[in-house]
Amino acid sequence: MRRIDYMTVAGIVAGIGLMAGSLIMGGNPKLFWNVPSLMVTVGGSFAAVLINFSFQDVKNVFGTVKQAFTTDLMDPEELIELFGELARKARREGLLALEDDADRLDDPFFKKGIQMMVDAMEPETIRQILETDMAYMARRHEIGQSIFKTWGNLAPSFGLIGTLIGLVQMLAKLDKPEALGPSMALALITTFYGAIMAYMIFIPLAGKLGLRSEQEMMLHQMMLEGIIAIQSGVNPRILEERLRSFLPAKPKGRQAEGEDVVMGEAADRQF
Amino acid sequence: MRRIDYMTVAGIVAGIGLMAGSLIMGGNPKLFWNVPSLMVTVGGSFAAVLINFSFQDVKNVFGTVKQAFTTDLMDPEELIELFGELARKARREGLLALEDDADRLDDPFFKKGIQMMVDAMEPETIRQILETDMAYMARRHEIGQSIFKTWGNLAPSFGLIGTLIGLVQMLAKLDKPEALGPSMALALITTFYGAIMAYMIFIPLAGKLGLRSEQEMMLHQMMLEGIIAIQSGVNPRILEERLRSFLPAKPKGRQAEGEDVVMGEAADRQF
Amino acid sequence: MRRIDYMTVAGIVAGIGLMAGSLIMGGNPKLFWNVPSLMVTVGGSFAAVLINFSFQDVKNVFGTVKQAFTTDLMDPEELIELFGELARKARREGLLALEDDADRLDDPFFKKGIQMMVDAMEPETIRQILETDMAYMARRHEIGQSIFKTWGNLAPSFGLIGTLIGLVQMLAKLDKPEALGPSMALALITTFYGAIMAYMIFIPLAGKLGLRSEQEMMLHQMMLEGIIAIQSGVNPRILEERLRSFLPAKPKGRQAEGEDVVMGEAADRQF
Amino acid sequence: MRRIDYMTVAGIVAGIGLMAGSLIMGGNPKLFWNVPSLMVTVGGSFAAVLINFSFQDVKNVFGTVKQAFTTDLMDPEELIELFGELARKARREGLLALEDDADRLDDPFFKKGIQMMVDAMEPETIRQILETDMAYMARRHEIGQSIFKTWGNLAPSFGLIGTLIGLVQMLAKLDKPEALGPSMALALITTFYGAIMAYMIFIPLAGKLGLRSEQEMMLHQMMLEGIIAIQSGVNPRILEERLRSFLPAKPKGRQAEGEDVVMGEAADRQF
Amino acid sequence: MRRIDYMTVAGIVAGIGLMAGSLIMGGNPKLFWNVPSLMVTVGGSFAAVLINFSFQDVKNVFGTVKQAFTTDLMDPEELIELFGELARKARREGLLALEDDADRLDDPFFKKGIQMMVDAMEPETIRQILETDMAYMARRHEIGQSIFKTWGNLAPSFGLIGTLIGLVQMLAKLDKPEALGPSMALALITTFYGAIMAYMIFIPLAGKLGLRSEQEMMLHQMMLEGIIAIQSGVNPRILEERLRSFLPAKPKGRQAEGEDVVMGEAADRQF
Repeated sequence: MRRIDYMTVAGIVAGIGLMAGSLIMGGNPKLFWNVPSLMVTVGGSFAAVLINFSFQDVKNVFGTVKQAFTTDLMDPEELIELFGELARKARREGLLALEDDADRLDDPFFKKGIQMMVDAMEPETIRQILETDMAYMARRHEIGQSIFKTWGNLAPSFGLIGTLIGLVQMLAKLDKPEALGPSMALALITTFYGAIMAYMIFIPLAGKLGLRSEQEMMLHQMMLEGIIAIQSGVNPRILEERLRSFLPAKPKGRQAEGEDVVMGEAADRQF
Repeated sequence: MRRIDYMTVAGIVAGIGLMAGSLIMGGNPKLFWNVPSLMVTVGGSFAAVLINFSFQDVKNVFGTVKQAFTTDLMDPEELIELFGELARKARREGLLALEDDADRLDDPFFKKGIQMMVDAMEPETIRQILETDMAYMARRHEIGQSIFKTWGNLAPSFGLIGTLIGLVQMLAKLDKPEALGPSMALALITTFYGAIMAYMIFIPLAGKLGLRSEQEMMLHQMMLEGIIAIQSGVNPRILEERLRSFLPAKPKGRQAEGEDVVMGEAADRQF
Repeated sequence: MRRIDYMTVAGIVAGIGLMAGSLIMGGNPKLFWNVPSLMVTVGGSFAAVLINFSFQDVKNVFGTVKQAFTTDLMDPEELIELFGELARKARREGLLALEDDADRLDDPFFKKGIQMMVDAMEPETIRQILETDMAYMARRHEIGQSIFKTWGNLAPSFGLIGTLIGLVQMLAKLDKPEALGPSMALALITTFYGAIMAYMIFIPLAGKLGLRSEQEMMLHQMMLEGIIAIQSGVNPRILEERLRSFLPAKPKGRQAEGEDVVMGEAADRQF
Repeated sequence: MRRIDYMTVAGIVAGIGLMAGSLIMGGNPKLFWNVPSLMVTVGGSFAAVLINFSFQDVKNVFGTVKQAFTTDLMDPEELIELFGELARKARREGLLALEDDADRLDDPFFKKGIQMMVDAMEPETIRQILETDMAYMARRHEIGQSIFKTWGNLAPSFGLIGTLIGLVQMLAKLDKPEALGPSMALALITTFYGAIMAYMIFIPLAGKLGLRSEQEMMLHQMMLEGIIAIQSGVNPRILEERLRSFLPAKPKGRQAEGEDVVMGEAADRQF
Repeated sequence: MRRIDYMTVAGIVAGIGLMAGSLIMGGNPKLFWNVPSLMVTVGGSFAAVLINFSFQDVKNVFGTVKQAFTTDLMDPEELIELFGELARKARREGLLALEDDADRLDDPFFKKGIQMMVDAMEPETIRQILETDMAYMARRHEIGQSIFKTWGNLAPSFGLIGTLIGLVQMLAKLDKPEALGPSMALALITTFYGAIMAYMIFIPLAGKLGLRSEQEMMLHQMMLEGIIAIQSGVNPRILEERLRSFLPAKPKGRQAEGEDVVMGEAADRQF
């Protein structure tokens, strides 16, 4: 179930509104629209991103952007309840009874873990496989964030390059002093574009993806601990205690308050 | 017991006083009040923070700010004394006798630890659960600090964006040279706002929250070691020696001197 | 089999095109061509790189550049299939039967690992030798990246040095105000050169080499785990599960889509 | 025995002398004295430091400054000789004979270690206690350094804030062009103050405290290894070899040369 | 045998040549020579370095500079051959036979290791002693690099301080507009000095020392592994395989090519 993260959208709308309002209040918003400046800043920094990463990475990242605006992560409270049920079922009916549950799960990581447990693989092997999976998933996530972070770091530099181009061209024909102001205004626009790209878009998006990745990693760590615990026949109550230690101490009043916010991060942000 | 950290308050009052004094001495403090500039700097950077974090995180952080001005952390000396008592009681009356003490404790981490010990859970399981609790609490704390740190890093950038907007608008109508000075003054105000936000407010607040978090982590580490030690029946004197190694060597004259300062950090700052 | 990474090439072509276009649109691209400025920026930063590194390192790095544009890394999916075959063959015919396969392999790391296994060296010794090999290969790769990163960090500084030289020379003969503009334009060109060198070339190249190195390290880690697993007689199906945990969960539709992109990084980027 | 570190003092005197000389050569050193500028830069950054840290930390740091100018650390060579003696005495007369030596020692860490050994505590417990002591001492030291580092990072920012205040005030009354120069000079003085505070005072002091802390940590590590070794009855010659591995290979000619330099850091700097 | 690293020298000569050429082409190289500016930049940053470090550290670093231009490190290939010989000799004649070889060795670390092995110390003790030796040698090396790095970071700041002094003095007497240009040129010279010091000299030197230290650490790690292996009677062929894993896979054609380059870093840079 994919839910929209309204606040990220609100942040973007508010940011654009504020910037636009400020340009309009200055009288002439068209001043800030210049195609060659866009080409140098957006195009130049995108070209540098293509050199730094592979085309495949960059293509993938557009899928990732969607994740900054929506979330389909499980609620960790639900996960704890689910593990409680699975543990009790495993005690009553044996590990093999969990095979059906594996099929019902969305998360391929969770599914794979339950399946390996049902297949009676060694706990040590399961742990190794799931930890390798988590480690390399974290690295793939880092590449996604890194594309935005790199773009965010390069954009102001290309803004500066554009401004330098404008200044050099302006200074070379200083004989028309009446053109000085507008030329310089034009030269500064690339720096403005670069700063907006970096600080309004790419750097916050990279931050958001990083937080999402951390949340997913916490859920996977909980799944890993839960699967190993069920396999070793741990008491369901201790398993719940064990998993609850990933979350803040008092989620009191969660249900009431949690409904109008993005569920994956309700209450005290659960990781 | 929540105590106010007077010095943080004093720092803020002094900082504001100094800035205000300096503006007033310059003759015209109204020069530094400009609503559109505030919108771009405060509003723009807040919008970027909303993109980077989730609404829930940002809402929680306002509760966290209170922690920068007050403290309800235990005095580590008191904690050592308390553990001495608990260890002696456990030796005399058995671990079960500590059940009542668990109920009297404020800190949910401490309470949970004592309770698990009373419930006769395995020491290794208790350690795992409490360490997971500490690790993820530290990560939640980091998100709080990270909101302020991110805001503090973005504010000067949005100050710069505001200044660029002002400069471009000014340069485009350079025909009225008498308006040049005031226009430029206005353009620079956003940079001023961004710098004040970052260096006077958000970056120091992030630093303070980080120190508070480290202090709390030290207390939890002491609780963890103490609980495991009581469970394994360590000699109370050795337990005290063990816990005292978290603190500076000579807390001499503490009582006399400690009373007029925030107690959680008296004497040589106890962590 | 060495494949060209068309997108890195495309990135460079697009970047150069955008910059050139922007210079030409400004009217006089020859403004941006100045040999003494090139000498200060390119020559000066190269001299500093020679001081920082050894001649041998710098010479080697030109071989490394080729790796940013081409790739001869194995497709990890093929590697998993290959290990499946090797594991089945080893079960059927014994470890000695893998000797011929070792000779057919391109990668010296893989070859060495298989050879040591065939020679019946202790698994612990094989792991130690291969991990040392990986650790020091990673450090040699880091030196290559570090040359580009250092160059990229120094280039804007030498651009600034060139601009300072130009400004000092210009300011000293301020008596000819008509020369002010062009002199200043000239002074700014070194900063322009430095920024282009850094943000268009060296920093993205360093990033690309880092990603390539990470990919190669993942392949080597997979080889290491696979070799140890074959030697210990692990079930081929579990071996494949183990190796697949290095890759993203669902490479569905890979074959169809993978053909027109650089194979080593097809689908969800496989590391 | 507390010894003065003459060179730190010399560095400060030389730095002040050079700056003063340079101001005097410029003709009018009184230009650089301005009380409101001092208020904004020194006062403002101090207020931010008070927000970031607690009053207690800041008060303690003034005691720490003394350590940048003096040293009472043991000479590591003497420490090795002392351990040689203690090891031989322990072999001849038993561990209990070391009780008197514990009383004669200055360093509370050393004393505590010897005392625990005499009290026949378990080596593992002694190691745990001493390592906790070292870890938290290192963290307390870091807070001290961090105050100076933070102050050093904030000072130029408050210098910039002061300059922005000056520029805005100046630009708003641009009608008196003859006042432009001196007003701008005044505005720049805060940046000058901030830079001197940061680069001449706080950042180097933070660096010095860091090096002192590392030296002390090395001495404590040597004490820890020595105490554990004596307790386990290691051969005194091997103990000396073990401790000498913390120091550079050939301290030849130490005695002759070591006398006119700060002893704790004689010869090849002994850590 | 100490060999000169011609390329570092060439880098410095080329850098100075390029800078000088660029100054001369500008017409009046004497513009860039100003003693008070040198005093502020070189003297001021050196004073700050003296505060940050101890006199002894700074004195030692001048010996270290020599290492940036020369190298007396063993060729790792020779080291492997030497270990092959030692391992075979130890097998034939026993460990005691290596005593004479210890005396012939230059490197005190190697000598000490062989000597401890001949003295029949426990492998675990030998490893501990040699690892402590390596760890603290690495830290001493870091202090050397850190002096240059700190100096390199402070130099541009003192360049800025000098420029601020010059600007304030210039702006205060703005009544003589004809002096504006040359005064400003003079003010900028300190920034130029600071940038040259940092980016041409200190930062590259710090980088070079870091690489030298890494190379030495690799050689010591090889010696450590080799000594432990000989002591445990490992097969000489496996020892060679083990040590060769520190080096790149194919040093083919090394001898032919290696002669006209600095030997310690021949072929694919051997670490």
